Amino acid sequence: MTELAKSQTLPATMRAVELRSFERTPESVVMSEKPVPRPGKGQVLVKIAAAPINPSDLAFLRGLYGVKKSLPVVPGLEGSGVVVAAGGGLLPRWLLGRRVACAAPPSGDGTWAEYMVTSAALCFPLHKEVGLEQGAMSFVNPLTAWALVDLARRGGHQAVAQTAAASALGRMILRLAPRFGIEIVHIVRRDEQAELLRSLGAQHVLNSNSPEFESELQGLCVRLNVRLAFDAVAGEMTNRLVRAMALGGRVVIYGALDKAPCQVDPGMMIFAGKGVEGFWLKDWLRKKSLVAQFLAMRNVQKLLGSDLKTEVQARVPLEEVAKALEQYITQMTRGKVLLVPRPL
Amino acid sequence: MTELAKSQTLPATMRAVELRSFERTPESVVMSEKPVPRPGKGQVLVKIAAAPINPSDLAFLRGLYGVKKSLPVVPGLEGSGVVVAAGGGLLPRWLLGRRVACAAPPSGDGTWAEYMVTSAALCFPLHKEVGLEQGAMSFVNPLTAWALVDLARRGGHQAVAQTAAASALGRMILRLAPRFGIEIVHIVRRDEQAELLRSLGAQHVLNSNSPEFESELQGLCVRLNVRLAFDAVAGEMTNRLVRAMALGGRVVIYGALDKAPCQVDPGMMIFAGKGVEGFWLKDWLRKKSLVAQFLAMRNVQKLLGSDLKTEVQARVPLEEVAKALEQYITQMTRGKVLLVPRPL
Repeated sequence: MTELAKSQTLPATMRAVELRSFERTPESVVMSEKPVPRPGKGQVLVKIAAAPINPSDLAFLRGLYGVKKSLPVVPGLEGSGVVVAAGGGLLPRWLLGRRVACAAPPSGDGTWAEYMVTSAALCFPLHKEVGLEQGAMSFVNPLTAWALVDLARRGGHQAVAQTAAASALGRMILRLAPRFGIEIVHIVRRDEQAELLRSLGAQHVLNSNSPEFESELQGLCVRLNVRLAFDAVAGEMTNRLVRAMALGGRVVIYGALDKAPCQVDPGMMIFAGKGVEGFWLKDWLRKKSLVAQFLAMRNVQKLLGSDLKTEVQARVPLEEVAKALEQYITQMTRGKVLLVPRPL
Repeated sequence: MTELAKSQTLPATMRAVELRSFERTPESVVMSEKPVPRPGKGQVLVKIAAAPINPSDLAFLRGLYGVKKSLPVVPGLEGSGVVVAAGGGLLPRWLLGRRVACAAPPSGDGTWAEYMVTSAALCFPLHKEVGLEQGAMSFVNPLTAWALVDLARRGGHQAVAQTAAASALGRMILRLAPRFGIEIVHIVRRDEQAELLRSLGAQHVLNSNSPEFESELQGLCVRLNVRLAFDAVAGEMTNRLVRAMALGGRVVIYGALDKAPCQVDPGMMIFAGKGVEGFWLKDWLRKKSLVAQFLAMRNVQKLLGSDLKTEVQARVPLEEVAKALEQYITQMTRGKVLLVPRPL
């Protein structure tokens, strides 16, 4: 029994991006016309306002993400919009008419469409100061940045190293960590990125292509007692982190830009008590109570306009998804590319 | 102020093996004549009866062990003997005259000599049923086997995978685990080793050189819910374990027979919650209270004649250390080679 928001009528069909194959061909990601889905019990229908392209979406398109849905499917892990219809249940009805940040359901279609049905538990009402544009990028980066800094705080770390530090997520960590008195050793791959981070106030920035990189990293890790590192690169970079860190250090892998398996010296694990593990937002959330999830999201929302703000380089209509993907992949550092079903 | 055991006189000098270089040359490990050392406060002098060659000694000789002592030094991480002199302190005096299992001090000379000075805390009196020969091999293998099985028990694991399963340590785990209702998936590299383990009662034995290895391993890991693996091989083997294990699985590295860095798929850590860490007996002991260490050693001693018994393939005088090393390296599976300063 679907309940509609006031003065809302639903069309029969909608425009949506569709993933048809995990191969990288021009036909794998296409536009399609689909029926507007109806929310079931505990679900809502969100009229999507904006949805970003994230590195995790790129992994999803290749079948390399933690969740591999059956094809064809609408991609898009997160977005924002207005709840225009509610299935049965208290929470769905409470959300009706509200502006929300939303995540795609674990199975079924995602946010790169005019409408999406998802669990009401995967929607978070936007604070009135948060716009639909920033609200569309609430989960993947800001909540991950929050969660990683939270890991550091709970472990009592006063300094942490991070790779891919010039990424949207890396810059959020750069801004967020000082709030909790945590120093960050930033690792980038190009001098322009190092300059950029310094201009944003970063104190310790290393270029991993410099010949002195490993000795400088080790020096900083010893001086600042770095025993935790966030790594989005993997491959040989993981081992460079493992070797440089202080005794008992842990590398937390949350991405794999290098696409090669992490390398780790066994001696560093046996005799220096070091280790490597992974981080996935989904698992982090699953281990939290609903109240703790709610509080984390509320904290994140408060910072969406400042520390956790995301740069946007372009807003692209759904129809131009191929162009949007191309633009994002070739110049990630310039900011997110947003898919907008209709002008905001 | 040294106190001597009854009817004991100490010679001025002794024969000892000496490591002079971490390079692998015929001159790096030689016999030497050295002064018999005197125990200081908290220390004892052990008249060595027997000392094994372990894989960790081989790593020590190459400078690849967790402790790298300054050269020249007497190698040998463990052994047995009689406490013939005590420095100041209650514990040293209590040990005087007793047969003990002993470990080398963190710095300074080890067990491959006629005498060794070590901390009284690194000596454990042998139970009357335990001979000096089995007692010489109390720590490195039996205590590690005990500690690894203890890790599995404390983690609530009902099944564990292990590589290098035909090693002395692997066979101890094979015999010890069933006492605690833990099933073991044994991984070896040759068919003869698989046969050997089956003849010892092993139920699940896989040859990693078989073409079906990965699918068989995965099948067993799923069926038995294997989320813990003990790995002494490292390199690509680590990744094969990581991929095969059930969600949340951990590989514990305690050796590196392969000599290559561990490989680990980042996706397996991010999306499947898997991780890799190290095990070093020294760290395990350091985290235990003295009482817990004592209880663990007592439990191990009770089993030295059965589950934790070590096969001995040869007893070799100190003077023939080069031959002893050669024999051990070329046929490890046949059992330990013991260095004996004088016939037992």
